[in-house]
Amino acid sequence: MKFSVFIATSVDGFIAKPDGNVDWLHTAGNLEADMETEDMGFKAYMNAVDCMIMGRKCMEVISEMNLTPEQWFYGDTRIVVLSSTLTEPPENLRGKVEMYAGDIHSLVDKLEKEGYKHAYVDGGKTIQSFINLQLINEIIITKIPVLLGEGIPLFGKTFKDIKLEKASAITFPNDFIQVKYSVNYE
Amino acid sequence: MKFSVFIATSVDGFIAKPDGNVDWLHTAGNLEADMETEDMGFKAYMNAVDCMIMGRKCMEVISEMNLTPEQWFYGDTRIVVLSSTLTEPPENLRGKVEMYAGDIHSLVDKLEKEGYKHAYVDGGKTIQSFINLQLINEIIITKIPVLLGEGIPLFGKTFKDIKLEKASAITFPNDFIQVKYSVNYE
Repeated sequence: MKFSVFIATSVDGFIAKPDGNVDWLHTAGNLEADMETEDMGFKAYMNAVDCMIMGRKCMEVISEMNLTPEQWFYGDTRIVVLSSTLTEPPENLRGKVEMYAGDIHSLVDKLEKEGYKHAYVDGGKTIQSFINLQLINEIIITKIPVLLGEGIPLFGKTFKDIKLEKASAITFPNDFIQVKYSVNYE
Repeated sequence: MKFSVFIATSVDGFIAKPDGNVDWLHTAGNLEADMETEDMGFKAYMNAVDCMIMGRKCMEVISEMNLTPEQWFYGDTRIVVLSSTLTEPPENLRGKVEMYAGDIHSLVDKLEKEGYKHAYVDGGKTIQSFINLQLINEIIITKIPVLLGEGIPLFGKTFKDIKLEKASAITFPNDFIQVKYSVNYE
């Protein structure tokens, strides 16, 4: 099974302000640029994955957005939320996500047995756990053109230096730069 | 006067391992790629600057490389090293760098009066000081395809969110990605 990451960070590498706030995502970059038909690869990426695994905090950020069915980003992609504390999703995400309290290897076995091939892994802590289990195969980072100075970093401590390869980069009219790498745990 | 940064970091944003080691710079990326005539823009960048300002630690890393005159990167570009403790450079850098103990604004005044137009600012702490004085105009970061997990970050705390613009990116055959931004302190 393949596991990949599609996430935005500031140029200094943060996915959120220290308090979890991500409002800067919507005010950064050149807001006058023509981005009408440009989704920075998100739909193509969602079409390439068949399930999603996210952390509890990531789910809570989405819950707080209170998306209408029209605004919902993820279509009917199956979403598993890792939490050792919550057994039920927030009211506004019932029927959209399922909670999972077990370990990651068991989840991966379960999804593989059910025929899933490619999971979108989201949330800082969850991504870090998957990297340290040597599971993440591909990383797509959209660099938002801002320095925040402090916040929640995308990457954390790793078990060793991890080699990235097959680098590519795209620059968008709004000054966002999207980089893509394969991960080689050797 | 213009101030710019030309520096390499890991994909997780570190300029060195926690102990200052930068050996990973030389082993990262696709070592079999043809990079014979490719200097990733360094010579052109050096031709565009007329002086260099670096921190003491940055100088010490260069001193430890014990470069021969043929290996010396910086031609005869004037190099000012900021230090409040050292008054003399190490033996092997005498005649190549000069020490400076005053504050940054006085140094900038002095260089401007002497006719300098564009300084290369190097070293983590020095870059952070210049950003916080709203002096850095352009940032060129070469992203080395490795996750280190921990180390000395390029960026530190900022006085506020800092907007970057005019983004561009180049991917090299060795899987290094170089991004470039102008800084807008608004």
